[in-house]
Amino acid sequence: MFGAPYVGHLPAGPRHAITDVPGVYVGHVTLAQGPVQTGVTVVCPTPANAAAAEVPDAGWDPFRDKIPAAAAVINGFGKSVGLMQIDELGVLEAPVALTNTFSVSHVVLGQLRAAIAANPDIGRGSPSLNPTVLECNDGYLNDMQAFAVTEAHYAQALANASRDVAQGAVGAGRGMSSFGLKGGVGSASRMLETAGATFTVGVLVLSNFGRPSQLTIAGRHVGPVLDARLAQPALSAAPERGSIIMLVATDAPLDARQLRRVATRTGAGLARTGSVYGHGSGDVALAFTTGYTVSHDATGRVAPAALVPDALLDPIFQATADATEQAILHALFAAESVLGRDAHVRRALADVLPDWASL
Amino acid sequence: MFGAPYVGHLPAGPRHAITDVPGVYVGHVTLAQGPVQTGVTVVCPTPANAAAAEVPDAGWDPFRDKIPAAAAVINGFGKSVGLMQIDELGVLEAPVALTNTFSVSHVVLGQLRAAIAANPDIGRGSPSLNPTVLECNDGYLNDMQAFAVTEAHYAQALANASRDVAQGAVGAGRGMSSFGLKGGVGSASRMLETAGATFTVGVLVLSNFGRPSQLTIAGRHVGPVLDARLAQPALSAAPERGSIIMLVATDAPLDARQLRRVATRTGAGLARTGSVYGHGSGDVALAFTTGYTVSHDATGRVAPAALVPDALLDPIFQATADATEQAILHALFAAESVLGRDAHVRRALADVLPDWASL
Amino acid sequence: MFGAPYVGHLPAGPRHAITDVPGVYVGHVTLAQGPVQTGVTVVCPTPANAAAAEVPDAGWDPFRDKIPAAAAVINGFGKSVGLMQIDELGVLEAPVALTNTFSVSHVVLGQLRAAIAANPDIGRGSPSLNPTVLECNDGYLNDMQAFAVTEAHYAQALANASRDVAQGAVGAGRGMSSFGLKGGVGSASRMLETAGATFTVGVLVLSNFGRPSQLTIAGRHVGPVLDARLAQPALSAAPERGSIIMLVATDAPLDARQLRRVATRTGAGLARTGSVYGHGSGDVALAFTTGYTVSHDATGRVAPAALVPDALLDPIFQATADATEQAILHALFAAESVLGRDAHVRRALADVLPDWASL
Amino acid sequence: MFGAPYVGHLPAGPRHAITDVPGVYVGHVTLAQGPVQTGVTVVCPTPANAAAAEVPDAGWDPFRDKIPAAAAVINGFGKSVGLMQIDELGVLEAPVALTNTFSVSHVVLGQLRAAIAANPDIGRGSPSLNPTVLECNDGYLNDMQAFAVTEAHYAQALANASRDVAQGAVGAGRGMSSFGLKGGVGSASRMLETAGATFTVGVLVLSNFGRPSQLTIAGRHVGPVLDARLAQPALSAAPERGSIIMLVATDAPLDARQLRRVATRTGAGLARTGSVYGHGSGDVALAFTTGYTVSHDATGRVAPAALVPDALLDPIFQATADATEQAILHALFAAESVLGRDAHVRRALADVLPDWASL
Repeated sequence: MFGAPYVGHLPAGPRHAITDVPGVYVGHVTLAQGPVQTGVTVVCPTPANAAAAEVPDAGWDPFRDKIPAAAAVINGFGKSVGLMQIDELGVLEAPVALTNTFSVSHVVLGQLRAAIAANPDIGRGSPSLNPTVLECNDGYLNDMQAFAVTEAHYAQALANASRDVAQGAVGAGRGMSSFGLKGGVGSASRMLETAGATFTVGVLVLSNFGRPSQLTIAGRHVGPVLDARLAQPALSAAPERGSIIMLVATDAPLDARQLRRVATRTGAGLARTGSVYGHGSGDVALAFTTGYTVSHDATGRVAPAALVPDALLDPIFQATADATEQAILHALFAAESVLGRDAHVRRALADVLPDWASL
Repeated sequence: MFGAPYVGHLPAGPRHAITDVPGVYVGHVTLAQGPVQTGVTVVCPTPANAAAAEVPDAGWDPFRDKIPAAAAVINGFGKSVGLMQIDELGVLEAPVALTNTFSVSHVVLGQLRAAIAANPDIGRGSPSLNPTVLECNDGYLNDMQAFAVTEAHYAQALANASRDVAQGAVGAGRGMSSFGLKGGVGSASRMLETAGATFTVGVLVLSNFGRPSQLTIAGRHVGPVLDARLAQPALSAAPERGSIIMLVATDAPLDARQLRRVATRTGAGLARTGSVYGHGSGDVALAFTTGYTVSHDATGRVAPAALVPDALLDPIFQATADATEQAILHALFAAESVLGRDAHVRRALADVLPDWASL
Repeated sequence: MFGAPYVGHLPAGPRHAITDVPGVYVGHVTLAQGPVQTGVTVVCPTPANAAAAEVPDAGWDPFRDKIPAAAAVINGFGKSVGLMQIDELGVLEAPVALTNTFSVSHVVLGQLRAAIAANPDIGRGSPSLNPTVLECNDGYLNDMQAFAVTEAHYAQALANASRDVAQGAVGAGRGMSSFGLKGGVGSASRMLETAGATFTVGVLVLSNFGRPSQLTIAGRHVGPVLDARLAQPALSAAPERGSIIMLVATDAPLDARQLRRVATRTGAGLARTGSVYGHGSGDVALAFTTGYTVSHDATGRVAPAALVPDALLDPIFQATADATEQAILHALFAAESVLGRDAHVRRALADVLPDWASL
Repeated sequence: MFGAPYVGHLPAGPRHAITDVPGVYVGHVTLAQGPVQTGVTVVCPTPANAAAAEVPDAGWDPFRDKIPAAAAVINGFGKSVGLMQIDELGVLEAPVALTNTFSVSHVVLGQLRAAIAANPDIGRGSPSLNPTVLECNDGYLNDMQAFAVTEAHYAQALANASRDVAQGAVGAGRGMSSFGLKGGVGSASRMLETAGATFTVGVLVLSNFGRPSQLTIAGRHVGPVLDARLAQPALSAAPERGSIIMLVATDAPLDARQLRRVATRTGAGLARTGSVYGHGSGDVALAFTTGYTVSHDATGRVAPAALVPDALLDPIFQATADATEQAILHALFAAESVLGRDAHVRRALADVLPDWASL
């Protein structure tokens, strides 16, 4: 897809994207005008069993029917919001939003207002919502100090959610950089068999990490060539301040402890592209399942779905690592060149390394 | 102080407050009008060696000279911001702000703007700031959905910072509840000897936790009486949705690993007041030292101050537990009754349990 | 029980011990001869639904039907074995054994041999067993360097397992000290209602922590008096090198994430007795449920039991904190004075503080 | 080295091994007789400033002058001993020993006896030692149930410690398997510049992980070919039960929090070889520095060495990932074929894939 090599031996789903996981939808808002090159991306998990539609079930309220989830912080240099409570309670109670570092607060407020609209008691009789907004710093291309993202952009991104996933320099990925090239949003999926059934793992990354010299494409260490080609004044990278957010979705029913194990495996896929989890890179993964939900209102004991046993998780781990690497490649191969603030430019990989496969 | 019993055998500092720790300042903004009963409190740590003044050193920039810090999440049901990066890097790079749950985003934006004003490169050439805003849910008294706190209130609270610490129903504590009574801001300090020197431990809590039946004052389990007295329709508590933020300051030079150990000891002081770290209570501690700073701009190896060895930490642990319990008691004993939204009332402990010592 | 005051308002089970939890059995081996004052204690969890018998079901193999479990390390100064894998996989696969610090290896070998006897493939075709042995340092009374505990003592302790729980200076508790007094094994239970059912929480502690000046009995801070009475040469304590192991059992069906939350609440009960989680004290909790098991051999998806929702855990948390405090008191009140190595003596609380209730 | 390709652009030290780090020594005991194919490996860190000698300074006592250290548990399916206390206190107080899963207890006892010999007060007046023994399961080749390793083998391995590092099927690596091939001990080093100085990072792995289909050599995914070649009855692998222990040494002065960050980067090097951190693989890293020591006996404040700032850690992270990958390759390329219990065989990579570079 996008001319990227295919990673591993597991098959992809039909869309080659996180939305191959039943119940998952993605929406973007892209802001691209002069020095403002940024946006919002929303990944909306809904129960898999209501998953035939092209857009999320309007009747589903994630605050009342929560999504099992867990995070893995590979390198915690970042400002993402919501992970402490996910770690304690093992659930998401809002769609996951991605944006630039300075815009987290506005998107949090957008999430809060959406939750209050659906549940007027939030913060009154009810506990308050746990907003979940993850971020990377797109300040090389985007004028973050313009604070261009507003609360309304969250609702708009959510309204745009569908099973089609635009990739590259779109949504929260609009201003992101990777390996001195244009980064952004990438997604991929893998299908696997375990525990007597077929499941899908989907990954969506907000890719904003990596020094040019590190880039490795499907095992091919093209970084040195890339480094040489970028070493022209106009293209030379500012010191790397990257980050990557890796969202993992699956319809395999897992509990929060198992989802933390899954989230940890993104680190393997990430490493294959050349990352060593740099000091300044907020490398954060969040995994969730659409296989069952957790009711906000339970008054008695509740059975989760039948879970995949730990001893049978290896195919899911493999799919997670493969789909993470693939999603990062998709972000790179899908991205177009972008001209941002102060004449900063990030060129597309296709433009700088059209010959990557023969290097 | 405030009529509260004195806990333990270690002596308090002269102010009986977190500002007994050299270099620490506290400022409040209180919003108290009709259904809006909330505010912002800022705890401003500065290097201890510049600590004679009544107000923070205007020339000190916490982004460039960072404060060693570590958090302990005792129960992660909460929406505090900034802890992931503190856990990774072991430093604070902004004053610590407290507010209500829905106002975290506005205070974050206030912190961001203050940091950008001092460092125009933040988010451009520089890494971005790690905002540090901790919260409790004051929604029983305060109309959180009014979003009354603005970005400007952060700067205002910081401008109010001094060595005097108003306690009770002030600042972020204005709308908080504890044990079915009026809670709020409380602070305390203890002095101790270890490693051949005298150090101070100061605690400031935002106290918003506890069911009436649990209240224990200096070992006296007065909860059952309190429960009976509150069991009148007008006073009966809504289901507990509490939380407590516990900030620990010390001038003892410790590294981040040791500060995490210190932060963990707040749980002992908290438990003595009757808490069992309830499910819905975000019980979060953050410890920092003013004993040395960590430069943002170091280009070579840097020696931290000489540290207190782990084997000599026990007096600091004792001081932390004692000052935490004492600070919670101060919050309860200092607070005045408050009438908030929808005729909700939280009465002062002094009002409901004037006879606590003889129960 | 044992003359100890009763803590809190929840009722105890009929045995006032961890064996009130259906499926839990306890066995001791006590070694008490001259300078050897030590032993082994085994807590044997079996599925609750086979729990009528006085001794463990001989047919149950914990390696094949594992027990959901999770640990909380409050202060990690300790040498307990097995917690890393429990943290990853959320299960126990052997009875939990307690002993002195130097004897952990021998007991591990005893566990290994028992598991191999039942499962000859362990370490060959099968994964190897995760031994689970927790410890405190009884070196003040016991000559640990004698290495008196042998592999066979593990099997013997397990053979002794029943629903009766001897407490005080028995089993692994034989040589333990608390607050400068004789410590040892203590146990307690509480019954609670939640999620429409009645559940039991049981705690067994190996109590070996605390400085005399800290002792607090049911809120009464008797430490200063104790300190004065012990300040005679023959009784003066060596520097505290304590620790406490806290095992929590319940029949409430919980998953590993929830059990970690439960284990954390032991810290509240521990703090009420005066502990501030001292530097040198390995304060470690392990919680498990007998409500369901996890099969080693599952080849398909498996439904756990219906779980208690997180929002309904507060009564379990309260029971955990209360039973922990109560178990520590039972250890102190049940222990008899012991004369150990080199004329070291630890006197019983009943001997030193018969008048505790009027201090 | 050993015919393995060279990974990355940083230079290796003169020995291409962990002993390039000043102060680090390695010793093996190898047991290779019939069904017993196992051993013990000891990595002995001593202060870098006394590091000219070929063998460890006999006068150095790691219990009194401790080595700063931290672990990263990438996948906690394992039985390693000692990590809980390292996590709490940030120091090693004994050489690090490696062995097979069932032999951990014997090696622990060997460590205890060595420490007691040097410090007769251990476990009496003094705190007890924290033994540090890490393991992998070599049960495919080695009859672990023979318990062939004795306490004395630890002392013997330590007595063998020098700056020469035998690699492959030696010491603890004797019976280990990787990717269906013979695994074992591998080591590598990298030199880097940061903070105005040159530092060395050395890695030693006990490599026992990986399915044949995953093997990736310097970016070349040779797994499918390997899988085909091994698919003969005599060679077919039992279900993978692997693990890998990764020890990272550096002379760069770092504190425990930073060393945890370093240890985490082994996961990147591990992933490049094809690992996805399999369910059954105990993937555990331990990093330490020889740059300074922490005194057991400090009675006052103590300055650590001047530390490398976090913002300058990237070259150390790169070196860690590169040396980890390289060490795994060395283990594979150095290992000779081994015939073990029950006619089980693991063939050398050189034997099965002599043509790996052209696949």
